[in-house]
Amino acid sequence: MSGSDWLAEAHRICGAEFVVDGPAIEPRYLQPARYAPGRAAGLVRPATTAQAAALLRLAAAHDLTLVIQGAHTGLVRAATPSDQRRHLLLSTERLREVFDFDPLDRTLRVSAGYRLSEVNERMAGHGLQFAIDLSADPSIGGMLAHNTGGTRMLRHGDVRANTLGLTALLADGTLLQAGRGLQKDNAGLALQHLFIGSSGALGLICEATLRLQPQPRQRAVALVAPRDLDAVFPLYREVMGGELAGLVSAFEGISRPALAAALAHVGDPGRLFDGRLPEYALLIELASELLAARLDLAALLQDWLEQQLGGERVVDAVLGADEQLWALRHAISEGLREQGAVIGFDISLPRRHFMRFRAEAAAWLAREFPAARVADFGHLGDGGLHFNLVWPRAEPPLSAQDLARLREGVYAINAALGGSFSAEHGVGPQIQAGYRQWTDAHTQRLAGGVERLFDPEARLGLTRFGPER
Amino acid sequence: MSGSDWLAEAHRICGAEFVVDGPAIEPRYLQPARYAPGRAAGLVRPATTAQAAALLRLAAAHDLTLVIQGAHTGLVRAATPSDQRRHLLLSTERLREVFDFDPLDRTLRVSAGYRLSEVNERMAGHGLQFAIDLSADPSIGGMLAHNTGGTRMLRHGDVRANTLGLTALLADGTLLQAGRGLQKDNAGLALQHLFIGSSGALGLICEATLRLQPQPRQRAVALVAPRDLDAVFPLYREVMGGELAGLVSAFEGISRPALAAALAHVGDPGRLFDGRLPEYALLIELASELLAARLDLAALLQDWLEQQLGGERVVDAVLGADEQLWALRHAISEGLREQGAVIGFDISLPRRHFMRFRAEAAAWLAREFPAARVADFGHLGDGGLHFNLVWPRAEPPLSAQDLARLREGVYAINAALGGSFSAEHGVGPQIQAGYRQWTDAHTQRLAGGVERLFDPEARLGLTRFGPER
Repeated sequence: MSGSDWLAEAHRICGAEFVVDGPAIEPRYLQPARYAPGRAAGLVRPATTAQAAALLRLAAAHDLTLVIQGAHTGLVRAATPSDQRRHLLLSTERLREVFDFDPLDRTLRVSAGYRLSEVNERMAGHGLQFAIDLSADPSIGGMLAHNTGGTRMLRHGDVRANTLGLTALLADGTLLQAGRGLQKDNAGLALQHLFIGSSGALGLICEATLRLQPQPRQRAVALVAPRDLDAVFPLYREVMGGELAGLVSAFEGISRPALAAALAHVGDPGRLFDGRLPEYALLIELASELLAARLDLAALLQDWLEQQLGGERVVDAVLGADEQLWALRHAISEGLREQGAVIGFDISLPRRHFMRFRAEAAAWLAREFPAARVADFGHLGDGGLHFNLVWPRAEPPLSAQDLARLREGVYAINAALGGSFSAEHGVGPQIQAGYRQWTDAHTQRLAGGVERLFDPEARLGLTRFGPER
Repeated sequence: MSGSDWLAEAHRICGAEFVVDGPAIEPRYLQPARYAPGRAAGLVRPATTAQAAALLRLAAAHDLTLVIQGAHTGLVRAATPSDQRRHLLLSTERLREVFDFDPLDRTLRVSAGYRLSEVNERMAGHGLQFAIDLSADPSIGGMLAHNTGGTRMLRHGDVRANTLGLTALLADGTLLQAGRGLQKDNAGLALQHLFIGSSGALGLICEATLRLQPQPRQRAVALVAPRDLDAVFPLYREVMGGELAGLVSAFEGISRPALAAALAHVGDPGRLFDGRLPEYALLIELASELLAARLDLAALLQDWLEQQLGGERVVDAVLGADEQLWALRHAISEGLREQGAVIGFDISLPRRHFMRFRAEAAAWLAREFPAARVADFGHLGDGGLHFNLVWPRAEPPLSAQDLARLREGVYAINAALGGSFSAEHGVGPQIQAGYRQWTDAHTQRLAGGVERLFDPEARLGLTRFGPER
């Protein structure tokens, strides 16, 4: 059948206005955050689960691969099509049929197309939130497909921990209801957890039941300068295992180059620590539902800092207005981009190997790629690390081959120390090779079996968890 | 091959001392908590993953079904063999190879055979706990296989939320490592979550990496008498959505007959509320890592109660010594057994239908089984409900057929209101029929596909998630 066959059919399914032929697709659907633009045979934007099901059947009938896209904010290229003849891009942005808030269960049944910001704006009036904190503003469907984590998952966990059920269309257009949206429910295999973090490979997530959390009534934030690297984890242990444990909502680590880049970006490089930046800074946030009259978090944090400043581990600290310190944290990525091409690694590690990884990877890079500048930062509190490198503009760009060798070298050091090659961004074409290399054959074989069960003809998505077919 | 063939082989694998022929099996391995005793061709007790793998292969070679048993505390009969020719019972109690505590990650890699109490005794010295609170003392493997919940999952979640990885032997004896034991790890399909809550149907869980939580430094508990049923959920909303939200570690509901039975059991029926028991009592517990000098939970709870006693919703309250009030809560089950045969339902519901379910089920029972006394209690905080009935000793026992009709009637009312037929006990032969009836065909078909993938010959366990073969 020719291209126009499916085009006409798609028109009938979801209206001509919401079907676009490949060459006419707007750039935002094809341009991912970090990579070269993609291309597709066409774009379809269903408004209902029924339309989406019909489009899945259409894709099967016309031998098209369906690439599912939410808000296109992902960082592993899982939502960017790359074949202008065989890839049909399905945007979930119009999937907005359901927005069903249950105030007693504190749950929200919501269609995949809603954005995180919309959910949180609408829930704020009820004193509730979907407690995932990100710089980006992804769709709910995309968040499930990649099990996003973010900076504040210490108190309430990741997307997985806050999803009580979902519906997904399988490749044949049948709808699966996985999980009843109840907090306690052990009445079968937990199929919903296969979809969470599946990068769209098993089905099209249409709807999720989210667990909402109360909005904290107060926060207190401090940026702490530890004496040296050896002081970092003792501080971590004291905070996470001591009196403050239940209050810590973020515990972030920022290397000196990353902090310097953020300060340069906000235009105030000398502001902090009298200009003497520590080798590794810590951003610590407390949060509570209690009113400050009951428990004053700022005072609590200040007490703790004063105690620490009298000791040997902390040399300086800024007890901050939330927004300013977080703005700095969120300015790191942009700050780094101003200095050159960023090579990002979203990894995690056992904490006991965290500093060793940083040292070994830095030493390997100094030897093999001396121009690369390490400017890492990350979520010490949950073990995540954005081991990001800047390749300076003054240098000749890395060849694709060298870049692959660089990535492989860093991943190898991480894997040898028991780390994960994808902490919170999920899996996509960008790290498909890493998946193949760092996932044992047995696991790949089983994952492939699961893929075949849900999507026998490999119609869905660009990520493959099974061995190459 | 004859029985003695596998017996001799099993001797070679794990030592004659740890292999027992069917008739010689000690009663504790065959007598489940609530049901008639089972029977088996034999019992094997491997000490290592390697021995267990060899036994799995042995079972396959001799066409035996392997029934995996932890501490045999489960309530759905998933661990009690029932065929004296074809069921080989594998106890995990000697699987104790690994006990690897990581103080920095606050994780414990532990073999399946350790008991919950052992883990918590050994972790207490580090100020940590595996934060699942149960009356029973199951093995870690059993807890994963059934994703146990318990009374205190409000702050830290269920077993699933606190498991960062596991190893499992598949039916063919191959070992799967699912999850790296890291808090943030999204590097593939989350196969570990299939095993959690799988009742031993997909594999033998040998080892888990558990996330530990800090032990609270203080708790405060109150037993509250709401004015009437209409006051219960407004109180719930205020506690779970208000200032106390982050501190609530338990929010339990106890019906008047359940409370009366518990009081009778502890021998002090008139002690509480001047003998005027409320229709539905609430047990509310706060917990915190903060010292009382910083935040006094008892004072906080007392303040809240005094406020409530001045209002319309609460008529009486006991601010208690923890142990006494919890002892009462844990005496319910025994108290009920003293009054007759207990017919238990471990269900959960959307909270908006919670009271409606109680009323409809009670009305149906009054009509169809007037002798049955409803004495429910449960975990209001997480939506779980032990809708337990007492069949008085004075009545002629229910026939199997009538019991089945009773169970089906109650489950039907629960299902019609969007409830789950298994909240925290998992699935086993005891509710296999319920699973078939209340799980849609599509889900069963997919679950069956997953079973075939992990256990192609249906050698493992007594629970079947797929349609009948």
